[in-house]
Amino acid sequence: MQILNYSPTWQIKNKLRMYESTIDEILKMHLPDDVLPEINRLLYGRKIKKLDLPDWKNNYNLERQGWILNSTIEEQLRPKRIVRVGLIQHSIVLPTTDPIENQKNAIHNKIKEYIDYAATCKVNIICLQEAWPMPFAFCTREKYPWCEFAEDAENGPTTLLLSKLAKEYNMVIISPILERDSANGDTLWNTSVIINIDGKIIGKHRKNHIPRVGDFNESTYYMEGNTGHPVFDTCYGRIAVNICYGRHHPLNWLMFGLNGAEIVFNPSATVGNLSEPLWPIEARCAAIANNYFTCAINRVGTEIFPNKFTSGDGKPSHHDFGQFYGSSYITAPDGTRTPGLSRSNDGLLIADLDLNLCRQAKDLWGFRMTQRLDMYANELAKFV
Amino acid sequence: MQILNYSPTWQIKNKLRMYESTIDEILKMHLPDDVLPEINRLLYGRKIKKLDLPDWKNNYNLERQGWILNSTIEEQLRPKRIVRVGLIQHSIVLPTTDPIENQKNAIHNKIKEYIDYAATCKVNIICLQEAWPMPFAFCTREKYPWCEFAEDAENGPTTLLLSKLAKEYNMVIISPILERDSANGDTLWNTSVIINIDGKIIGKHRKNHIPRVGDFNESTYYMEGNTGHPVFDTCYGRIAVNICYGRHHPLNWLMFGLNGAEIVFNPSATVGNLSEPLWPIEARCAAIANNYFTCAINRVGTEIFPNKFTSGDGKPSHHDFGQFYGSSYITAPDGTRTPGLSRSNDGLLIADLDLNLCRQAKDLWGFRMTQRLDMYANELAKFV
Repeated sequence: MQILNYSPTWQIKNKLRMYESTIDEILKMHLPDDVLPEINRLLYGRKIKKLDLPDWKNNYNLERQGWILNSTIEEQLRPKRIVRVGLIQHSIVLPTTDPIENQKNAIHNKIKEYIDYAATCKVNIICLQEAWPMPFAFCTREKYPWCEFAEDAENGPTTLLLSKLAKEYNMVIISPILERDSANGDTLWNTSVIINIDGKIIGKHRKNHIPRVGDFNESTYYMEGNTGHPVFDTCYGRIAVNICYGRHHPLNWLMFGLNGAEIVFNPSATVGNLSEPLWPIEARCAAIANNYFTCAINRVGTEIFPNKFTSGDGKPSHHDFGQFYGSSYITAPDGTRTPGLSRSNDGLLIADLDLNLCRQAKDLWGFRMTQRLDMYANELAKFV
Repeated sequence: MQILNYSPTWQIKNKLRMYESTIDEILKMHLPDDVLPEINRLLYGRKIKKLDLPDWKNNYNLERQGWILNSTIEEQLRPKRIVRVGLIQHSIVLPTTDPIENQKNAIHNKIKEYIDYAATCKVNIICLQEAWPMPFAFCTREKYPWCEFAEDAENGPTTLLLSKLAKEYNMVIISPILERDSANGDTLWNTSVIINIDGKIIGKHRKNHIPRVGDFNESTYYMEGNTGHPVFDTCYGRIAVNICYGRHHPLNWLMFGLNGAEIVFNPSATVGNLSEPLWPIEARCAAIANNYFTCAINRVGTEIFPNKFTSGDGKPSHHDFGQFYGSSYITAPDGTRTPGLSRSNDGLLIADLDLNLCRQAKDLWGFRMTQRLDMYANELAKFV
């Protein structure tokens, strides 16, 4: 793990508190060596090993972490089923005042380099953050120019770029974008496109739950998803996507599990003042409750918009609404988790997941077996 | 917060690793003063104030913590609705080889003193740990003498003792016991009895989900509860009880919330090797997802049984199965939580909860409103 510059008093920058260090870095710096392992156990579960990553010379300040989320049981009848996943968290590149196409191309170019590097790391499945090729402009409540970032899920420039990379690298790529559904009255959706190793789209999932909290009044832009809870059966495992605010909804996580997911990705965009203390809880709890892997991804950086806007909190209007705190992490089906990526820098988190751990965790804990789903189906039906 | 003896290398005692300090104590000891607040924010949410508790001279090594989980909004149309809750975590008193009645009486006597003290603290609602008047003997798989701890929920000695105290102190008391249901073929249940301020029973709840994990093969002793998800409307607020293993089941938490609970107590009994890294996650996630208070209580100490038993882990038979790690804590509907009680000592956690915070958190986050319950009722019905 790369140790970032750590200043014991928080830096004040652009009138924002910029947290330069993660909790892991701070604990590592201050706790005695004989105490740290027990604190890590309490915070993160069993000890996991690092995964060595190849060197990479680049012009970006990209943090890279590699971890092995192995299973602890040697099964007799099943070989281990290891899949290497990659999560990318990143900032935007150009000012939000630049031409839309330039902004998008600049992000495309950066992420292409990250994916090129992930390919040298032999990553099988990579997931990008929510609405990755654009600034998270939904705070502005302005339709233009931001709606111009919306793209066709099947043939838009972002899908075309990633299809090429997916095919070239034998990678499954999950690409969360703002979708323009031209065939359906130009409806916009918050959509994750799942691209297979042949470069073709396996399917897409549209965000089920829309936030109306703080700056995120996203129902201004798009509607509740109409794709249910699909699980995509790829050559690397059965995967699903719970987009951002859906992580607050245990039923959303549940249905992906019931439908057979082994890994659920949670591409997000959320800022420190709103949700940072909740961030380590929800995706991790979902992994525990449903005995699958969860991969939580959050963007980084502070995005400054040309026109001032208010945040419904009585404070003066402003050009930004705070820092996306990154901190992307992965949790195993037994609750063991990786440290988080940086709170302020681009990052790539790569991990080997043994998918057999899903069933092993089910066998150990028995949550699925003791779930009494018929009782709840009845109670929910009555309640509704 | 009382600082326990802290030894940087873990004590080895009775062949068990005894953890003498909580994570809070360790962080407080080692982190610089200008770093600790930010770490506490990341781990626990917004800063909360301490609640002063009256002195108490006693023969027990009882840790006492007091906290104020206030709301941050001054509503115009509703006065604050503060309820003071108390959680008691404790060890057994006498060896498990002593006569059953003596064992139970010794625990009764200790807990009576704790409740007497809680009354001087003006506690409104108190909750005890799972199967509180007995050792957690379910690991042995022996029916006798342990089944003799089972009691009539309405007229057993434990209910009679607590009814008297509830009436005397105007307290609502939640008493989790092993219930003997003589009128129903001597069925045993894992039951929480809810006693009102007049000393009468408001109702009871029987544990919905039964663990079959590690040493906890509890279906040997009792069956899945048949009481659904009752919420009890007391003069201090609407309360419910999610017993132990039910905390791993998001649907269990959900139904208590849908039925109107403002506080859900989670009396538990769980040991370090099995669940300690999960303990801070699940009850806290439930508070966040359902916008109510959760109160998680775990017993403390190592219980040694007369006959050796095995734990299904290939290890030699033994007289105990590890340390109950206490660490009881409360989470507010916005995710803010108290520190945990001791990992090894008896403890009383008292907190003022402003129940208005439930609705305020709903208004802020909108989880209930964006829940799409009809969709899930349909999907679950189809799945079942």
